[in-house]
Amino acid sequence: MSAQKIVIIGGVAAGPKTAARARRVAPDAEITIIEKGKLISYAGCGMPFYLAGEVHKFDHLFETTYGVIRNEEYFWREKGVRVITRTEAKSIDRDKKEVHVENLETGEQYTVPYDKLVLATGAQPFVPPIEGLNLKGVYKLNHPDDAQQIKEYLGEVEGGEAVIVGAGFIGMETADALMKLRMFCSVVELQDQILPGVLDKDMAEVLAKKLTDQGLEFYLGHKVLKLEGDEDGHVTAVVTDQGTIETELVVVSVGVRPNVQLAKDAGLTIGQTGAIAVNDHMQTSDPDIYALGDCVENTHLVSGKKVFVPLATYANRQGRVVGDNVAGGDEVFRGILATGVLHTMGFNIGRTGLGEKQARDLGYQVVAGIYHGFDRTHYHPEHGMVLMKLVTEAGTGKILGAQALGQGDAVKRTDVLATAITMGATVEQLFDIDLGYAPPFATPIDVSMHTANIIRNKVAGLAETITVQELKQKMDRGDDMVILDVRTEPQFNMRRLKDDRVKLVVLGDLREKIDEIPRDKEIVALCALGTRSYEALRTLKGAGFKDVKYVEGGLQAWPYEL
Amino acid sequence: MSAQKIVIIGGVAAGPKTAARARRVAPDAEITIIEKGKLISYAGCGMPFYLAGEVHKFDHLFETTYGVIRNEEYFWREKGVRVITRTEAKSIDRDKKEVHVENLETGEQYTVPYDKLVLATGAQPFVPPIEGLNLKGVYKLNHPDDAQQIKEYLGEVEGGEAVIVGAGFIGMETADALMKLRMFCSVVELQDQILPGVLDKDMAEVLAKKLTDQGLEFYLGHKVLKLEGDEDGHVTAVVTDQGTIETELVVVSVGVRPNVQLAKDAGLTIGQTGAIAVNDHMQTSDPDIYALGDCVENTHLVSGKKVFVPLATYANRQGRVVGDNVAGGDEVFRGILATGVLHTMGFNIGRTGLGEKQARDLGYQVVAGIYHGFDRTHYHPEHGMVLMKLVTEAGTGKILGAQALGQGDAVKRTDVLATAITMGATVEQLFDIDLGYAPPFATPIDVSMHTANIIRNKVAGLAETITVQELKQKMDRGDDMVILDVRTEPQFNMRRLKDDRVKLVVLGDLREKIDEIPRDKEIVALCALGTRSYEALRTLKGAGFKDVKYVEGGLQAWPYEL
Repeated sequence: MSAQKIVIIGGVAAGPKTAARARRVAPDAEITIIEKGKLISYAGCGMPFYLAGEVHKFDHLFETTYGVIRNEEYFWREKGVRVITRTEAKSIDRDKKEVHVENLETGEQYTVPYDKLVLATGAQPFVPPIEGLNLKGVYKLNHPDDAQQIKEYLGEVEGGEAVIVGAGFIGMETADALMKLRMFCSVVELQDQILPGVLDKDMAEVLAKKLTDQGLEFYLGHKVLKLEGDEDGHVTAVVTDQGTIETELVVVSVGVRPNVQLAKDAGLTIGQTGAIAVNDHMQTSDPDIYALGDCVENTHLVSGKKVFVPLATYANRQGRVVGDNVAGGDEVFRGILATGVLHTMGFNIGRTGLGEKQARDLGYQVVAGIYHGFDRTHYHPEHGMVLMKLVTEAGTGKILGAQALGQGDAVKRTDVLATAITMGATVEQLFDIDLGYAPPFATPIDVSMHTANIIRNKVAGLAETITVQELKQKMDRGDDMVILDVRTEPQFNMRRLKDDRVKLVVLGDLREKIDEIPRDKEIVALCALGTRSYEALRTLKGAGFKDVKYVEGGLQAWPYEL
Repeated sequence: MSAQKIVIIGGVAAGPKTAARARRVAPDAEITIIEKGKLISYAGCGMPFYLAGEVHKFDHLFETTYGVIRNEEYFWREKGVRVITRTEAKSIDRDKKEVHVENLETGEQYTVPYDKLVLATGAQPFVPPIEGLNLKGVYKLNHPDDAQQIKEYLGEVEGGEAVIVGAGFIGMETADALMKLRMFCSVVELQDQILPGVLDKDMAEVLAKKLTDQGLEFYLGHKVLKLEGDEDGHVTAVVTDQGTIETELVVVSVGVRPNVQLAKDAGLTIGQTGAIAVNDHMQTSDPDIYALGDCVENTHLVSGKKVFVPLATYANRQGRVVGDNVAGGDEVFRGILATGVLHTMGFNIGRTGLGEKQARDLGYQVVAGIYHGFDRTHYHPEHGMVLMKLVTEAGTGKILGAQALGQGDAVKRTDVLATAITMGATVEQLFDIDLGYAPPFATPIDVSMHTANIIRNKVAGLAETITVQELKQKMDRGDDMVILDVRTEPQFNMRRLKDDRVKLVVLGDLREKIDEIPRDKEIVALCALGTRSYEALRTLKGAGFKDVKYVEGGLQAWPYEL
């Protein structure tokens, strides 16, 4: 009996991980990786950090933790895996079980037989249909070559201005990198919020305001029409449907599309999302062909729907599953929560599960809650704020999703929520979790639990809330109300809503000044974060006031100019 | 009908939290806190940080997040809660439903009637039965006064040496604080490991080695017999059963005991742990008397057993439950995982659930696994290592406990595991969790999942492992074996086991040099962290070697001198 032949198409992340795992469980298999490019097994997610200079050496993106470059020789010597680079898989003959390939250097064509085939063909940046993409100074940031080219180009220009097209993950990480390089950055986004599909609009607005305060400029709801250049072919401006932004550098990051042509041509099923359809064993419609990573769609663990969310962690975790299964195993990859985290300009941002709008669009009855607090005890010198939002199902209390952002550790809370949601936790169960508390790490009741308690208080009828967006709408349409600011006088004098309906009553004075507050008007209590205004609401309700709300997230979540 | 009278005994953490919550749900209740001391609502956990100078102002430990001091006036004005300080509850008359109290300033005695009584009497430091505790320079670190006194005393001495008695949470945090103050610190611990009851001995040994390398000295398994002083009454030495340690400062932190006398005298049930017994509504054996915080025992969520684990987070979370219930609510506090986290000397340490020994002692069949890896991508400039251990139940794969430590973010992983364990997750389900990945926060497959995979590999028969402790025992008793170090030559030359049985074969050379390795001997593969040695094990197994193991955690987990 000849050795099992495992052929893997794609050598960036999912492919090599599959090969490594298959080798460990099937020592006798012949394992071959076919990669179109010349680089393999590189840290694609590291590009913005290389660009920012935080990763100093290009090679670090290709090294193992112990400093060995992951090249063809490494895979052969350490893993016994054959890697063929600069070679493209042109077609699959499923009957003969062979792949037709072409050596892109020599033009030589030949066939590679397989017993099990693995498609790890990845995704590629979507290229928007606009003029000027071939100007000098216009880049994407998807491949190590891109990062190197931008670095070289930046060596040519003097300081300068940059425009990033697309306010998604890579766009926002690129903004961080370019700001670190002292570029003046603008971000143009077609949708009316940053991080669309990542954050709900209310959360995105808070973040955008904070980033704007630090010097980043956003053009939201702007459609890029074309890029303009000078006589030397260098880009000079981004022209949108609402104006022209001068610039010396453009980075286009408007999402990626799965590479499915090879699978499609072979007659494999493509899912409704446009990515390759796989079952929970990561098998395509042909049981001898597996697919994983950025070219497949996944099952959302909350909604049960198919989604296309290409992330490196799935590529790696699916690699273990496929590596087992092509070697005769029976492993499953259940699905994803579309958990996404990023760091940009001092802010940590995370999301997992369903967003509020997404949940409502799927037909869920939703109770959402926002809490603004510190990630660790406020007396600890390193504390930072976290704005957190939980999305739960009305009635069951099941947690559907979570979002968190701030200079504090928003990502730890995202991971806790991802764990809770995967396990089907309700908002009550979240309160049962014994999270680690010590002053350098958390508060005695963690931000995530406070957020859960906001929702429990709402459901119990203890707290009626409005969002900053709703308050702004009420202000704009001239609602008769008292905006009861209960902060201290110095806080009030430093920064406050400029509106005649605002009345300052310091929380500590509220009980004795309660008669100064009209009982026949709607009261909207406001403070910095939402803690004191909730206390004020309870005091007023206790004194018989009927129509009282407090503003979730407080003035710190106010996304508009004051 | 007169207002409901809620009387709370104890004003540090659990009491004020109970009062605040009760006020929010029961606006008409008369709420009174009776506190023996003169300070209330202080951040007891902040003492080491105040001592270290990281909290600059003493008042910060008493302030709200918005800078208001939490004193009697604050509670009255903001919460409508009456606080009586310097007043001790002497006895409870359960028939008349009143508490007999004494004003410690005036000696006046009077009774306070209650409808619902709450015992938040806390715990106090255990005083070991040794001579010399009243010498100058001998302190505990439990109350703000302690921290201030140590600071004043340190102002008197010149630099100097300190001995901490007890290597528990507070002892290790105090060591961190004193090292920051440039003291030369020794820690004396009766048990044969640091952080007993927190970490398993194998994990504690790794940590102790790393802290020793940074200049901290440990005297483990030493029993303190007495403290000696000079003619002025200043402490000069700690005398143990194994020698004398000269010192200018002693901090005694050998655990706390619950304050249960008041409850006991009132005939309330005291649990087997010695703390007050409560049901899941936090009611004592008298349904009108609740108890919470450091004076009660809790139910361990994994074992179902009663345990005494006094932590600030329980005091606060139980405060919400009791605050609801004394106001007519129906809230439960399910139990705890004894999650504990701390930071000391650059290391983050966490544990949750059952330790390995603890689980075995309780009768569980255990599969444990250790993994040593980076908390974020190794090319990110801020990455740190995390040594992680998971304890699972054989057969079911249920996660029983987790421990993590390192300069990397061990605490995030502890929180994720606490969440998973609370929800009853198995080691397979841990792999399903969609944790947030981006280079500044994690690796594509997180340390926690790698640890889970170690266990899955062991259970699947892919990996046989030994611990560094087991390897040391084998070396010491002269076992015939090959210790196959598969690191690079520079790594090997810099730091290695000095033993004739060690053989260097760089992983990349293993396949071609495989005939140099004897097939008739036990092979123990070793690398820095455990990744390459696992790879080597698979390669050797694939080549037909029968008796191969690899060392979990690698040389970085080696707790002995080299």
